[in-house]
Amino acid sequence: MRRQGEVDASNWFSDVKLDPRSAEPLYQQIADMIMYKILHHVLPPGTKLPPERELAALFDVSRTTAINAYRLLERQGWVKTRVGSGTYVERHAVESNGNSGNKGNAGQMPWTELFAARPQSPLSTILRDLVAAPLAEDNIALAAGMADPATFPIESMQRLFAERAGTAAPIDFGHIPTEGYNPLRHAIATGLAAKGIAATADQVMTFSGSQNGLYLLARVMLEPGDYVVVEAPTFIGAVQVFQGAGARLLSLPVSEGLNLALLEDYLIRYRPKFFYINPTFHNPTGRVLSERERHDLIELAARYRLVIVEDDAYGELFYHHPPPLPLKALDSYGGVVYLNTFSKLLFPGLRIGYLAASPTLINRLAMEKQYIDLHTSNISQWLLHVYLESGQLPLHASRVRSIYKKRRDALAQALRHYCGADLSFSIPDGGFYLWCRIERPVTARDLLHEAIKGGVSFVPGDAFYTTPESGEREFRFCFTSHPETVLWEGARRIGDTLRRMTKARRPAHSAVAVQPII
Amino acid sequence: MRRQGEVDASNWFSDVKLDPRSAEPLYQQIADMIMYKILHHVLPPGTKLPPERELAALFDVSRTTAINAYRLLERQGWVKTRVGSGTYVERHAVESNGNSGNKGNAGQMPWTELFAARPQSPLSTILRDLVAAPLAEDNIALAAGMADPATFPIESMQRLFAERAGTAAPIDFGHIPTEGYNPLRHAIATGLAAKGIAATADQVMTFSGSQNGLYLLARVMLEPGDYVVVEAPTFIGAVQVFQGAGARLLSLPVSEGLNLALLEDYLIRYRPKFFYINPTFHNPTGRVLSERERHDLIELAARYRLVIVEDDAYGELFYHHPPPLPLKALDSYGGVVYLNTFSKLLFPGLRIGYLAASPTLINRLAMEKQYIDLHTSNISQWLLHVYLESGQLPLHASRVRSIYKKRRDALAQALRHYCGADLSFSIPDGGFYLWCRIERPVTARDLLHEAIKGGVSFVPGDAFYTTPESGEREFRFCFTSHPETVLWEGARRIGDTLRRMTKARRPAHSAVAVQPII
Repeated sequence: MRRQGEVDASNWFSDVKLDPRSAEPLYQQIADMIMYKILHHVLPPGTKLPPERELAALFDVSRTTAINAYRLLERQGWVKTRVGSGTYVERHAVESNGNSGNKGNAGQMPWTELFAARPQSPLSTILRDLVAAPLAEDNIALAAGMADPATFPIESMQRLFAERAGTAAPIDFGHIPTEGYNPLRHAIATGLAAKGIAATADQVMTFSGSQNGLYLLARVMLEPGDYVVVEAPTFIGAVQVFQGAGARLLSLPVSEGLNLALLEDYLIRYRPKFFYINPTFHNPTGRVLSERERHDLIELAARYRLVIVEDDAYGELFYHHPPPLPLKALDSYGGVVYLNTFSKLLFPGLRIGYLAASPTLINRLAMEKQYIDLHTSNISQWLLHVYLESGQLPLHASRVRSIYKKRRDALAQALRHYCGADLSFSIPDGGFYLWCRIERPVTARDLLHEAIKGGVSFVPGDAFYTTPESGEREFRFCFTSHPETVLWEGARRIGDTLRRMTKARRPAHSAVAVQPII
Repeated sequence: MRRQGEVDASNWFSDVKLDPRSAEPLYQQIADMIMYKILHHVLPPGTKLPPERELAALFDVSRTTAINAYRLLERQGWVKTRVGSGTYVERHAVESNGNSGNKGNAGQMPWTELFAARPQSPLSTILRDLVAAPLAEDNIALAAGMADPATFPIESMQRLFAERAGTAAPIDFGHIPTEGYNPLRHAIATGLAAKGIAATADQVMTFSGSQNGLYLLARVMLEPGDYVVVEAPTFIGAVQVFQGAGARLLSLPVSEGLNLALLEDYLIRYRPKFFYINPTFHNPTGRVLSERERHDLIELAARYRLVIVEDDAYGELFYHHPPPLPLKALDSYGGVVYLNTFSKLLFPGLRIGYLAASPTLINRLAMEKQYIDLHTSNISQWLLHVYLESGQLPLHASRVRSIYKKRRDALAQALRHYCGADLSFSIPDGGFYLWCRIERPVTARDLLHEAIKGGVSFVPGDAFYTTPESGEREFRFCFTSHPETVLWEGARRIGDTLRRMTKARRPAHSAVAVQPII
């Protein structure tokens, strides 16, 4: 007895029959046939399909088989069963009708729905925004940690390329080992000896920037749920990579010296995969770990076989005497991974970072890096190598040190002049940054919001912490990318903004409750 | 009653007591205390710990709590319970005794045990071996797919760098957007128009080689268990990346034209995330998809909203007339991702690949790329941009086309001369490769084994397949990296090897059964 509005479903399936000897179960065969007819518009969206009993009769199968066929189709999004009504072809099962005449009409692919679900770092866009943010004509950007482009030794490299390219073996611009361009690895190993690090070329690996090294370390060492110890505050780019790998972060405050008791507690309780530390001219605070602290840390780490990832991006940028030897120079147990970059000392556009570590680790990193980019740019590696060979680096380093020292002092003086007791900070012995604390009831985010209008920007402190509500009154200035006069003007703008905000003194910023998403 | 050999455990714990108000459960507190004492050598390796009953009495807790404490410790590797004997501190729980005087003695860290478990591609090392294998002095390497270093336009780039570096804004060597160096993106978009692809600069993204683009596509789109359709045979580097992301691969044979019925079957059954295809001068077979096939594929893909990842690495390397327009030029539904590289046309050491796709996809790729390397080498991007601007590329392309065409013909002629009916192949209209079939009962792996001794190498066919026992008699020659005389000598060596092997005619290579690992 056919009710009104129903069509005779038997026509739809008169041309097909099941194969009882197939390895594929009968419900799967039925589901496939229905899918095929949906895709070919024999069964357009919205079509009511026969009830299970009728479907079973059409194909001469049990009712369970018919139910299973519909269940499979529903799970795959082809049909929808409405209780008390029946089973219908989904409206969106086929989104196109095969009309390929609409050329140039983009945006028809549901791209965002195709992306893999990933743990998104809560900081996910900060780093990129800092790197890519277009700067207003008159904005004084004290945010991104960058060397001054005016110091980039582009001309030297240009001369060297012109002089030396003839001597290059063309094969050096073909495929090279994933671990790096060998002459560059040798040159880096030589440079490490001057820092007390005894590494052979096969204990050195180059990367497409130290970010690439951090990413690879995370890929090779971290599984979701693993623990990693980081300083608080710490470098954003590292935190993002660790969180992206699903790691849980344990914060070790840097404010009152190295807290080894807390670190040991973490080691016992959580067995972290590694401790990521920036011991020298720390980003963002400028702190330097003392020689005593370095020895104690290594002793503890050796006892627990703790891997230390030592980021030494700023070690060459000292403005008084050279800092203590890197942790890697004290490494008694082979557990320190020394990571460095030429982005701060030379320029970021080289995209060359490197690490010194056990060849076992380097082999594993190279196995992974081949998937990611085969190897780092030969052009960059070759140019850097001839630059290092030319012996110009020490001179360049001493030149930028003297420039940056003056800038550090200028910014500190200007901030004291324009901000007085509104801001507190200590003067770092090296590196790129002045870490400030706002001594007024104003958060760094609010200050940034206003400061950008006033034409100056910086990085608010909370960006460097992995725990909420940390660093709210702190922020980071980079003092290396502008000449002194600009730094004075930047400080003046900050001072003005801060004074205006503390005068206008709105009601204290109250915490906004988290709203459930419904 | 204390039995012989046991010590009074109560002394060990006389200095500690539990905190009943702590949020930490009692068994956890007990476990923490024992761990602490193991780490501080109060309880050296091998120490027999008190029986559960005694431990419970010592801390005045239930026996269950004591059992749970030991269970936790055992799970974390600190202790080991031997049935009928008792619980002992593990020998390897603490591998170092804090002696930091053994400086320089590396290899003490258990590095390999620290690496994350990952699905390892069965092909995992082939690609890297091909790229990095040291070549014997007299070996003729016809394996890696590389342009001839003698053709690399290093001198042109050197001149351009010398001429143009003065005009570069230093900021171009600082941090730039993750999506790529904008002038280069514009230049690439202009070049795409000549291929019938209408893309604006924001629909173009640059990568650290096209491998980097493939890796990012996999990161952004694939979750473990997802399906991806690939050609069989196909490019190894892509397969490795997809497998590394946990994808399941569906093979579409290229031998008898594009099998759209099988593709549609895959689409219905598996809803693959994308189809990775190399439609023009296919690696390794040289096949070109006809215009008709391209249209039919796009029509089917549009109907199913199938993402097509079109790898066009060889499209410019045609030796007769230009190939049909890329699939991207026919893209009616916005689902084609066009991927290309400058490695084949210029040189691999540039490490510049790019893709043209929806800005939605590019944004997501850039979000991911910032973790991996922030952005691609500016030096490489800047140099490539001035090179493209200089208008030298078309001339270079026509130069290498005429060189490579002669080499293709030379290798084909030499193989016919030296191998005769032992090998069959068809002559490709473009690209880098000659795909050969051994018409004798010799596998390509066995041939390679002998050929290397004879001083010539190639890639055995099975490396290009994802299914076992495919391509056993096939292999790939790259004809672009050596001059004709060397290709003739390579062919002679192959011919000799093959003749020697078919004469020596060992018993047919019998399949070795898979042995269970016990």
